Amino acid sequence: MIRLIVVEPEGAYNVGFIARLVKNFSVDEFYLVNPKCNMQEAINFSAQGREILEKKAVIVSNYDDTIKDLDIKIATSSIADNEGDLLRKSIKPWDLDRFIENNKKIGLIFGRESVGLTREEIMKADFLLHIPGNPEYPVLNLSHAVGIILYEVFKLRNVKNTEKNEDERISSESIKLLDYYSKKIVDILKRSEGDENMYIALKRVLLKGVSDEVEARTVIRLLRKIYVKVNIAEGKSEDEME
Amino acid sequence: MIRLIVVEPEGAYNVGFIARLVKNFSVDEFYLVNPKCNMQEAINFSAQGREILEKKAVIVSNYDDTIKDLDIKIATSSIADNEGDLLRKSIKPWDLDRFIENNKKIGLIFGRESVGLTREEIMKADFLLHIPGNPEYPVLNLSHAVGIILYEVFKLRNVKNTEKNEDERISSESIKLLDYYSKKIVDILKRSEGDENMYIALKRVLLKGVSDEVEARTVIRLLRKIYVKVNIAEGKSEDEME
Repeated sequence: MIRLIVVEPEGAYNVGFIARLVKNFSVDEFYLVNPKCNMQEAINFSAQGREILEKKAVIVSNYDDTIKDLDIKIATSSIADNEGDLLRKSIKPWDLDRFIENNKKIGLIFGRESVGLTREEIMKADFLLHIPGNPEYPVLNLSHAVGIILYEVFKLRNVKNTEKNEDERISSESIKLLDYYSKKIVDILKRSEGDENMYIALKRVLLKGVSDEVEARTVIRLLRKIYVKVNIAEGKSEDEME
Repeated sequence: MIRLIVVEPEGAYNVGFIARLVKNFSVDEFYLVNPKCNMQEAINFSAQGREILEKKAVIVSNYDDTIKDLDIKIATSSIADNEGDLLRKSIKPWDLDRFIENNKKIGLIFGRESVGLTREEIMKADFLLHIPGNPEYPVLNLSHAVGIILYEVFKLRNVKNTEKNEDERISSESIKLLDYYSKKIVDILKRSEGDENMYIALKRVLLKGVSDEVEARTVIRLLRKIYVKVNIAEGKSEDEME
């Protein structure tokens, strides 16, 4: 379970964009602590995230209430890893893979546009997360930082675990045909033993490169056409040489 | 080298936010094709990205000019992977690790807020990239999509980048030739408009599938042979070939 907590946001556009992101990345819970902006104006920036602002968002006045039942509390900051400041020693977005589990309640906490989270608020969290960027100016706009973290979490929860679903598989028949036509085409074109390499290379590249059955069948259709033409060409050229 | 290309953006806030992201993630080049918004207003949303808008951004009127010298052109879309539409078959942000190398010119291309990139604009790119999200509403706001992709690229270039071995690299020349011969061969063999899919499929499969320069060159050698034979079969003499 993922809970997004935004503490005292100041820009209506950011609250609107964040609501949209909550929908884009299927966040389970969305808390706003003392928003400092006009919530009606925020709706203008929320697109289909409007229903998130109207129904899902929970507006509270106390930060502590939003974090007390969480298993893991992750504060965020654009300022991190200052020499000797242990509180600001950070983890990176991809380190979240250690924490994302469906049976854990995980809180992602973002602070004010102007001054971020206070040291006290960070202290109450378990980790400080920082998005690395240009050392001269790593300070992202609030909603863009939220977007990047929600994207990483969505990826960790939904995509990378179930990478290969049914329709991404390539049929054994297509694998066989990619191999078959690679060999047939090279057999006609090869002039020396070394040319056999072309068959190995083509077959491997095709098997590595095709990402689903539709793509595989399209390439097979092309290979079949090539095979026919190459046969015709060999017939002709042999006649001409005699 | 990373070039960000945004085609006909409509919202000043998005252009401002994107300029800030260009600075946050140290993007090398930033092109705007026919921006449809007030550029002065964009500055209000750019924070320290102001100098990007004032000095770095290149405003052009022609899309083709922004992509012609690139090694890899990656179009983006919030709509992808429709059943049977090969052009919209997508790669994911983390698949970019296959392409990010410091000696390559890589273009990341984003379209209009309202309608994205046209099919023609996508066709001119090598890949279509899609950020996965809630299937009911995966449509991110433009600048948030830009932020997520620039973050992934920054991560791949600067943070996670365990330098690839010299011999795992594929030269720009080979990338160009794999594309060139894929197109030439399909151009001769195609009989209907739908056959154009064979070019898209073959090019993408080859670019994804080749894992080093030796393999790439071997496949190119084979493609060249195929090209010659297919021409002969079609009744063209070698002199008539370009």
